[in-house]
Amino acid sequence: MTNPIPTLYDVISARPNVYRYLKPTPLHYYAGLSELVGAKVWVKHENHQPTGAFKVRGGLNLMAHLSEAERQAGLFTASTGNHGQSIAFAAKVYGLKATIAVPENANSGKVAAMRGFGAEVVFHGANFDTAREWAMSQAIALNGRFVSPTDELLIGGVGTYALEIIEDLPEVETIIVPVGAGSGVCGVGIVAKTINPNIQVIGAQSAQAPAMQRSWQSGQLVTAEMSTFAEGVATRVPFANTQQIMRKYLDDFVLVNDEEIKKAIILMMEHTHNLTEGAGAIPLAAALQLKEQLVGKKVVLVLSGGNISLERLREILIK
Amino acid sequence: MTNPIPTLYDVISARPNVYRYLKPTPLHYYAGLSELVGAKVWVKHENHQPTGAFKVRGGLNLMAHLSEAERQAGLFTASTGNHGQSIAFAAKVYGLKATIAVPENANSGKVAAMRGFGAEVVFHGANFDTAREWAMSQAIALNGRFVSPTDELLIGGVGTYALEIIEDLPEVETIIVPVGAGSGVCGVGIVAKTINPNIQVIGAQSAQAPAMQRSWQSGQLVTAEMSTFAEGVATRVPFANTQQIMRKYLDDFVLVNDEEIKKAIILMMEHTHNLTEGAGAIPLAAALQLKEQLVGKKVVLVLSGGNISLERLREILIK
Repeated sequence: MTNPIPTLYDVISARPNVYRYLKPTPLHYYAGLSELVGAKVWVKHENHQPTGAFKVRGGLNLMAHLSEAERQAGLFTASTGNHGQSIAFAAKVYGLKATIAVPENANSGKVAAMRGFGAEVVFHGANFDTAREWAMSQAIALNGRFVSPTDELLIGGVGTYALEIIEDLPEVETIIVPVGAGSGVCGVGIVAKTINPNIQVIGAQSAQAPAMQRSWQSGQLVTAEMSTFAEGVATRVPFANTQQIMRKYLDDFVLVNDEEIKKAIILMMEHTHNLTEGAGAIPLAAALQLKEQLVGKKVVLVLSGGNISLERLREILIK
Repeated sequence: MTNPIPTLYDVISARPNVYRYLKPTPLHYYAGLSELVGAKVWVKHENHQPTGAFKVRGGLNLMAHLSEAERQAGLFTASTGNHGQSIAFAAKVYGLKATIAVPENANSGKVAAMRGFGAEVVFHGANFDTAREWAMSQAIALNGRFVSPTDELLIGGVGTYALEIIEDLPEVETIIVPVGAGSGVCGVGIVAKTINPNIQVIGAQSAQAPAMQRSWQSGQLVTAEMSTFAEGVATRVPFANTQQIMRKYLDDFVLVNDEEIKKAIILMMEHTHNLTEGAGAIPLAAALQLKEQLVGKKVVLVLSGGNISLERLREILIK
């Protein structure tokens, strides 16, 4: 069974579910970044969310659509990152139970963050696949809801940030979005192209994790090697439903090297005074790579999340 | 002539002037900070403003109150920091000219930021006092408006963030605010004490710049030595009008050492993934110092600004 592609209607319908608990995030213009890129550059600050990342919009939309049985049994997912925090946060505000499976070697800081939002974190198995299978089996056994990171309700929820971009800057010409599992870029594509097909939507990913880009380019689902430091976009196996949407709505999909992403993290700190994780800096790295085609344009970079660890930050700042 | 103390009415009246151009900033709860302090800890994210600091609320309120002659002649001030950026930003959205005097050795990054918002930055004299005198004389000569960092219209404007705090968290028990010239803490004091006198308002400053604290404590205007690295609170000569307000509304005013402020900058990055300048980290340093009296309380830390330089950040992270 393939789910239908979400539409602008799904995004508009998600807004009350999102704004009941979140404020719109700012879209700020930065003169310093504009000079660097040679365009007019705005940043959409999804790092300002209570979880530090855009995904929480999707989690909140999903919670509003649960059946009574699902509410009783709670949510199940597997994630060590922003998706896990999103589900933990959203479950908390709805007073529901969230069980999040992580591999036994999971990063303790991220586990603490999910527990801080009240989720039950269960260590299970040596790797992510084992953890996910366990979470799925638990959801089935208990009549709960297993939440995939590309669930259509998540896409509808995260699409609300794209609407905010266009409402704040109707004259936007290009939006550059980092691609991990693809929920963010799909939300932007659906909203931007439905409202104004002239808005150019560009996906960007680390060259050290090209599965989603190669799949988009080839029209096939292609697994690829994955060695990026940017865990928010560390996708090895492509997601079919987001690929289908991306083929319909994306104008381009570029790859940038990890070294350029690290430089972009520093530039973002210097010019915007915001912390960004690797994924959140990818749009700036991509804009610098695409300078020639962006000359003079009104460009929005989606700073998808700010959850970088101190260790990573020290490493990047010191070298 | 002493100006009358601003009231809640002035803050409420400032709201349309502020929200015409800015969004309310978020107030986020952080489990990690709560555990550290032993209280329930929220952060008011004034670092999310387009200028990276709370002061811009005041600048926008002031612009809305200018006479036609002042609009024609423009704004004049002296600042190398967040006040200068605030006036530059606010003048830009109003299409007015802002002239900002800085000493000849001013930090080039901050000068670039003010120019990025369209201000004319004039280097004048070897120190800040010379620059300020020049700006005042220019304002008089050209019938423009000289803007003091503690202008009552600025206090009314910045007070809008205190209203947002109480609207988002009516049960707040303690608000801790960094004190430089005092406009922020005065805005908080006026709003919080008028709405609910039980809300405890605590000012905090670097022990390496105690002029405002000693003046508050002694009831006299006391100049003091100043050697703090936190330029947002680097006040050597106290401001009389904010002292008058602080005496009326502050419950306590504590000093924290620069070394504790630096640790708090790192803790803030680790637990909230936000960059903070020295001033913005002072409330966390103060809360850790006041742990025993805050046990279990609902505490808001005002993260007043995020404009830290890369050089400073490297120095703090590496040692």
